Amino acid sequence: MNAEPRLVEVRKNILKQNDLLARELRQRYRRAGVYTVSLVSSPGSGKTRFLEETLRLIRAQHPVAALVGDLATENDCQRLARSGAPVKQIVTGTVCHLDASMVDRALAGWTLDDLAFLFIENVGNLVCPASYDLGEDLRLVLLSVTEGEDKPLKYPTIFNTADAAVITKMDLADAVEFDRQAAISNLQSVRPGIRILEVSAKNGHGMAAWIEFLNAARQARPREV
Amino acid sequence: MNAEPRLVEVRKNILKQNDLLARELRQRYRRAGVYTVSLVSSPGSGKTRFLEETLRLIRAQHPVAALVGDLATENDCQRLARSGAPVKQIVTGTVCHLDASMVDRALAGWTLDDLAFLFIENVGNLVCPASYDLGEDLRLVLLSVTEGEDKPLKYPTIFNTADAAVITKMDLADAVEFDRQAAISNLQSVRPGIRILEVSAKNGHGMAAWIEFLNAARQARPREV
Repeated sequence: MNAEPRLVEVRKNILKQNDLLARELRQRYRRAGVYTVSLVSSPGSGKTRFLEETLRLIRAQHPVAALVGDLATENDCQRLARSGAPVKQIVTGTVCHLDASMVDRALAGWTLDDLAFLFIENVGNLVCPASYDLGEDLRLVLLSVTEGEDKPLKYPTIFNTADAAVITKMDLADAVEFDRQAAISNLQSVRPGIRILEVSAKNGHGMAAWIEFLNAARQARPREV
Repeated sequence: MNAEPRLVEVRKNILKQNDLLARELRQRYRRAGVYTVSLVSSPGSGKTRFLEETLRLIRAQHPVAALVGDLATENDCQRLARSGAPVKQIVTGTVCHLDASMVDRALAGWTLDDLAFLFIENVGNLVCPASYDLGEDLRLVLLSVTEGEDKPLKYPTIFNTADAAVITKMDLADAVEFDRQAAISNLQSVRPGIRILEVSAKNGHGMAAWIEFLNAARQARPREV
């Protein structure tokens, strides 16, 4: 299509603006001492369930808050609020990803200094969120055992931009004949050395190790950008 | 972001060009007497498995071919080719959806008159493919029982653009405590009157009814646009 090169150019400008704002956000997070984790995955991989359980476990130790993006509904916000943590919904309309300006606006009114952790749940989409830096310290990509072991190979960009991978719904691994070695090997081939965690938010499997990993990552982060 | 209105304008032009080409494709399909079905869903909902089984069943009755879109790999093409039907992979790179020009280019060299059915499997994405008409006669949205019953509410645009919905992986319904009534009611609230089929490509449940539905839809379609 003829208009495509112009579209690419406009997108590049948007990405540049996004990167500038994301850098500002990253500096704000660090100054405030809040460790920020974003979650990306396809729809239905269990992001919200996993995050709900994470908020519940962390809240016993540290002050924590969450932002959650969706095209429509406040369902996830209501689910996450059951943890008792402050939660804000970002409704994107038809936009397929969060960007730094949405996060910036949603944070208005919150005092970041009061928080130890901030979680940002992206719109369920294994493609578009890859390109948008949100200033997060850790980008987590989730992959459920029901989705198929080949997803890292088929959506390499988003797996490449992630700092760690979480395999979710491990309680269903047998029912779906999940090939654990294939999944791990596909993750490692796309993003060599990526840290992989295996969890079930339903039966609690791997959740303690995940919380330990988070605390260690927060401790290890340099205070300034 | 300042650049956004300009981006919206450029996207509108692209969509307009896409719609013009989609209309041409639709006329070509009709003239050739080929009934065209596109499949959209989130990654890992079972599109390829469902399509592989569909191709196998239809091939016994009619000549059929398929196009399959992915960011990377030819895996799906190889899986679908096991059915014996002609299959072509469209590798989109970082593009999150198929558009009419990709379909147009992929069809080069195929004689549509020889086909009764053409299937187009889109990139796994519940957001972006919604906006791109591919000239298809029937747009099918797939939703697996493992994804959660709330997906139609959270991704309303794509469910709204679909002509029929297929609930996949019904063999796992009990294992994931699938709430069938909630899923159906959510589908109907977003797209009142939508035809809903429930299948398991794994154990064959609902596949005969689906093939019957397809044959009837093809018969009922007017010959010219």
